Amino acid sequence: MLNVMRDARDTSLVLDRPGAADAAILVRLDDLATPALVLDRDRMDANIARMRRQLAPHDVLLRPHLKTAKSIEVAHALLASSGGPATVSTLKEAEQFAGAGLTDMIYAVGISADKLDRAVALRRRGVDLALLLDSVEQARLVAATSRETGVPLPCWIEIDCDDHRGGLKSDDPAILTVARALQQGGVPLRGVLTHAGESYNGMGGADDLAAAAEQERRAAVGAAAQIRAAGLLCPGVSVGSTPTALFGRNFEGVSEVRAGVYVFFDLVMAGLGVCRAEDIAVSVLATVIGRRGDGKAIIDAGWMALSRDLGRSLREGQPNYGAVCDLDGHVLPGLAVTGVNQEHGIVGSLSADGIVPLQIGERVRILPNHACATSAQHDRYHVVATGSRAVEAVWPRFNGW
Amino acid sequence: MLNVMRDARDTSLVLDRPGAADAAILVRLDDLATPALVLDRDRMDANIARMRRQLAPHDVLLRPHLKTAKSIEVAHALLASSGGPATVSTLKEAEQFAGAGLTDMIYAVGISADKLDRAVALRRRGVDLALLLDSVEQARLVAATSRETGVPLPCWIEIDCDDHRGGLKSDDPAILTVARALQQGGVPLRGVLTHAGESYNGMGGADDLAAAAEQERRAAVGAAAQIRAAGLLCPGVSVGSTPTALFGRNFEGVSEVRAGVYVFFDLVMAGLGVCRAEDIAVSVLATVIGRRGDGKAIIDAGWMALSRDLGRSLREGQPNYGAVCDLDGHVLPGLAVTGVNQEHGIVGSLSADGIVPLQIGERVRILPNHACATSAQHDRYHVVATGSRAVEAVWPRFNGW
Repeated sequence: MLNVMRDARDTSLVLDRPGAADAAILVRLDDLATPALVLDRDRMDANIARMRRQLAPHDVLLRPHLKTAKSIEVAHALLASSGGPATVSTLKEAEQFAGAGLTDMIYAVGISADKLDRAVALRRRGVDLALLLDSVEQARLVAATSRETGVPLPCWIEIDCDDHRGGLKSDDPAILTVARALQQGGVPLRGVLTHAGESYNGMGGADDLAAAAEQERRAAVGAAAQIRAAGLLCPGVSVGSTPTALFGRNFEGVSEVRAGVYVFFDLVMAGLGVCRAEDIAVSVLATVIGRRGDGKAIIDAGWMALSRDLGRSLREGQPNYGAVCDLDGHVLPGLAVTGVNQEHGIVGSLSADGIVPLQIGERVRILPNHACATSAQHDRYHVVATGSRAVEAVWPRFNGW
Repeated sequence: MLNVMRDARDTSLVLDRPGAADAAILVRLDDLATPALVLDRDRMDANIARMRRQLAPHDVLLRPHLKTAKSIEVAHALLASSGGPATVSTLKEAEQFAGAGLTDMIYAVGISADKLDRAVALRRRGVDLALLLDSVEQARLVAATSRETGVPLPCWIEIDCDDHRGGLKSDDPAILTVARALQQGGVPLRGVLTHAGESYNGMGGADDLAAAAEQERRAAVGAAAQIRAAGLLCPGVSVGSTPTALFGRNFEGVSEVRAGVYVFFDLVMAGLGVCRAEDIAVSVLATVIGRRGDGKAIIDAGWMALSRDLGRSLREGQPNYGAVCDLDGHVLPGLAVTGVNQEHGIVGSLSADGIVPLQIGERVRILPNHACATSAQHDRYHVVATGSRAVEAVWPRFNGW
């Protein structure tokens, strides 16, 4: 797992040249070219352990969502075994992780015609990829492809537990119509799947999150009951989101739990009370490149490095793009990235019109509002231990579909 | 320029295998795997021609900003000659475009110590890369590097014309202090440079934008006059932003104009009256993957494909992530992407709680709020002619630093 760098400034040399890992020059956060994505491996390991501890007393399978990290090294740290189980949000993820040995994945975005060829190809490679859908149109499409290719394409039916995005309401008779269309088409039904995405937008706090978890569980269990009452098989009940997985108290009737962002956590999760700022494992290293007459500082991390995600800051009346830490990862209270252009971030004070105590050339680390969105702006993680400035490894990450 | 695709669904096969362009299978927007970034080449060409027409009567050099497209093919379409001049926002751009033959570039983000090695390496390759700064600290840093390496590193001084981000105010005596620090360090001063970034945030309309352009011009010309009055050389006066370049009426004293987003345009520019929606050259192709009980539709383009940029929609009271067009690029009035998750977009009606007239499996094209941010979420452009669904070429684009 320990990679080393050929050049102290530009780590692209390592990634672009396979043989370069031989030269043993380590880089420190003091010298790394900025902006750069930093991953605190100790925090990540603790976050992974916390989710496992939380679910251990319950009779459920943990199926981590790999869309946050999109990294083979992080996937290996997250997964119970080298084959999975895992959740993915794109076929590119499914293909990349299949290449790394994963064999049990749910592609948890509603399927469309243009993606079936690649799903078939993955199943032909021996990957147990399951699909998601919530309409008769999609069920017929999958059935037709399965018939034409001779490849079974098992599916989950998406249930809507909180009006967040897709899925059928738990008491909607259309669930049965879809389940029957699958059955008639010879498509194996794996079960029902739901995601309490609205738990990200609520009040937060343990009781509120436990209530969201219970609502999520009831929706999924109720939908499964409807299908089973009609005499159809519905083996699985899949629920999950980081807040509801960590604060759920009752998992009765649930077979598996999906969650993703807990691997890194972020300011949205901290704002909900799901984690502390000190648990956030990813940050963007930046250099102060200017000072303004109004006391603010300018850093070389704009939306290209941080993303445009405002997280919960907009509703909290202080829109900003992340909290500011010193080079060792300690939060500098009251500072935030209050504005972004493509390659510029403006660091201001949230509490008053105070002078930002950062000098030209100084380095900071920005905690992300949304770890998935910020990580997606980068192609590699610079891995450090908590409190250390030595980069121990560079882990590639991918994007795209 | 005409590339063709080996596989009708997954164009990554083309880009990943150099020899694949031999097989002459064209893909159509009807079949392309979604989400995918589409570039209307006719619109792009018209946008490029418009900027040239606007500046032709004035005695100024056009120095296009390549940060919007980050594509060698688009750069060739934009530039007056194969060597430049051009503006870049990262050293990665400078290196990539140098590899494609560009020799005249300004890296228009304030310089920091970690980036000087690569700037020196570019200049040693014969690339006339100029740097930007606005402090004595940076001037001394550049001078020291230049002395140590024996490589001259010409610089521009950044001027703040509108409180947008960095730079010194036009009448700030610190301009002279920085100019003298450069002179004492033997660093060639190329001139003063400003960017009317606040023109994006104003009322819009021709008179408002012309006023922003005049404010930008006066700031830059005034700063240059201050330097020249002190007996120092200040050959260049560089101004620019897409709105001020297109609506400026007076370019007296200006030597060059920088602008970037005009190559594609976007809804921010349309909202300012800089262009029409029909001029926007990039869009995200998406497939409808679900319908909700409340009449909204779900597409397979979320923030990962569209970015989280709200553009001007937040201040206009209807926050959304883009306008919706049919597959041929005609705007479907009243529809917008009203919500996004990582791989899901929710299409709703802006005008009322109307039913969104999109069926499962149907395809749409989403116009971006901010072309730079949306394009940055993709690694390739699928190039079409206006009104055609045939993909004529696939142009790679890059990100990173």
